[in-house]
Amino acid sequence: MTKIYDRVALIGLGLIASSMAHAIKRAGLAGEVVGYARSQETRDTARKLGFCDQIYESAADAAKDADLVVLCVPVGAMEQVAIDIAPALKSGATVSDVGSVKRAVIDAVAKHLPQGVHFVPAHPLAGTEHSGPASGFAELFDDRWCIIVPDLCDDAAVVEKLENLWRGMGSNVDSMDADHHDLVLAVTSHTPHLIAYTMVGVADDLRRVTDSEVIKYSAAGFRDFTRIAASDPTMWRDVFLNNKDATLEILGRFTEELFMLQRAIREGDGDHLHDYFTRTRSIRRSIIEAGQDTEAPNFGRKPAEKK
Amino acid sequence: MTKIYDRVALIGLGLIASSMAHAIKRAGLAGEVVGYARSQETRDTARKLGFCDQIYESAADAAKDADLVVLCVPVGAMEQVAIDIAPALKSGATVSDVGSVKRAVIDAVAKHLPQGVHFVPAHPLAGTEHSGPASGFAELFDDRWCIIVPDLCDDAAVVEKLENLWRGMGSNVDSMDADHHDLVLAVTSHTPHLIAYTMVGVADDLRRVTDSEVIKYSAAGFRDFTRIAASDPTMWRDVFLNNKDATLEILGRFTEELFMLQRAIREGDGDHLHDYFTRTRSIRRSIIEAGQDTEAPNFGRKPAEKK
Repeated sequence: MTKIYDRVALIGLGLIASSMAHAIKRAGLAGEVVGYARSQETRDTARKLGFCDQIYESAADAAKDADLVVLCVPVGAMEQVAIDIAPALKSGATVSDVGSVKRAVIDAVAKHLPQGVHFVPAHPLAGTEHSGPASGFAELFDDRWCIIVPDLCDDAAVVEKLENLWRGMGSNVDSMDADHHDLVLAVTSHTPHLIAYTMVGVADDLRRVTDSEVIKYSAAGFRDFTRIAASDPTMWRDVFLNNKDATLEILGRFTEELFMLQRAIREGDGDHLHDYFTRTRSIRRSIIEAGQDTEAPNFGRKPAEKK
Repeated sequence: MTKIYDRVALIGLGLIASSMAHAIKRAGLAGEVVGYARSQETRDTARKLGFCDQIYESAADAAKDADLVVLCVPVGAMEQVAIDIAPALKSGATVSDVGSVKRAVIDAVAKHLPQGVHFVPAHPLAGTEHSGPASGFAELFDDRWCIIVPDLCDDAAVVEKLENLWRGMGSNVDSMDADHHDLVLAVTSHTPHLIAYTMVGVADDLRRVTDSEVIKYSAAGFRDFTRIAASDPTMWRDVFLNNKDATLEILGRFTEELFMLQRAIREGDGDHLHDYFTRTRSIRRSIIEAGQDTEAPNFGRKPAEKK
């Protein structure tokens, strides 16, 4: 793999940024990778782990002289970071981000960037339920999709360079306009997360079923919800506040369907339930065929070890 | 492990029954394991796979002379099986089942069983999204819970024997009355499944987001729903029709919570969202500590293989 950028700066050093640093180094995609995080603790951990060549004490110092600056902070923190780094950006530099919503990030960031700087938002569809600088690993993006939003950049070579970086980190690359991205993610990610959070919240609230019962018997389905409901709270708060319209629309649709199934249960309409459950089963098959999940039962969880 | 029953008959030969046969043989828990399934195709497959010592052409023939008969059919089919086997049951035999609801099974089955036969319902909380006789494996029950409902049996030795069988198959054993079982499962399993089915149904129905987009980008959270929404449609139809009250109650609670979160999104109440998401995260931790799931990111899915 050949070097794509001389200097890449990562602002924010959580799961995604640390995984990017590992993946860039694995493939030799940058001359150097530098970073900044707001909290002293995160900077110290990142220094100890050594996935960046240099950790700076300010976002502006990290962004200075970088050919690519990637904003890896929660969506709600993007605007302040853009303000902080704008004066330090070198002419011709590319700014990108990894936020889970794209319209709101564009609205918050683009207006603060100086002329001569390219802004190419991106969103790698990869993550785990863990967060922080120690949770990153080089394989996170392997065979996952990264969506590039090239709406604001009329220089095709600049976009292509960023796409090549993501390919070099192991991703498949697709491009989409910002609004369509936000709708697709409302369906495939944001609404499922909200629903998982809600289901886990309900279980936690119930009085007649004890916490220990919920936990002991979680293998019957519930535990799959808890994994996605364990994701970073700040990141997800910002996702919902910043993709409000699409999320509320899909939620409305969800509630409508749920009420129909609820009525079928109340009225004992077994045919309706059976038809519905048969249809959803085929979607799972398509996801496995598309290489986006494992066919192994229970996601290939290993049988529990005997004590 | 010592032999617990001379002859065990499994009625219905899907995922659970075939896994039981494998697990019983692994530990030498029965003199022989025999079986019956309604469909010729299932019987043929079971014969080919050889996990039973004998496959019969009728439920009554399989149940005859058995010390333990386990009904492993969908909840809606239990009553007919009870009627079919009742005349063939030997005095002193134990009848059990593996249905996901317990009150409805008791109502359907108990009245058909002759005097002198013990009825001890059970429910192993284990399964995968696959079904049928070829999907079973001996490790399915290892370190999972099996709930025994001893309400109807006043002979402690009979209950203990069944508990020992489940322990021998790798399970932890707990006991509960039928109504409490149905409520606990409505929270930990039935409602989560209905919600997963609904979310997958919504995605499938949308016109502006194409099917291929939903599938390509499913790794962002949606795929975890599709796994549980891929479970056997007949089994799940029967679960909802037979645990109507508890499921509708928990669904009502779920809808209430969802509307509160929806309002918080609409009004931009970030603190409410953040507090909620922080609380749910801790439940995940408890499930891992209780040994009911893996700590590995993404359930320990292996990084996708590079092409």
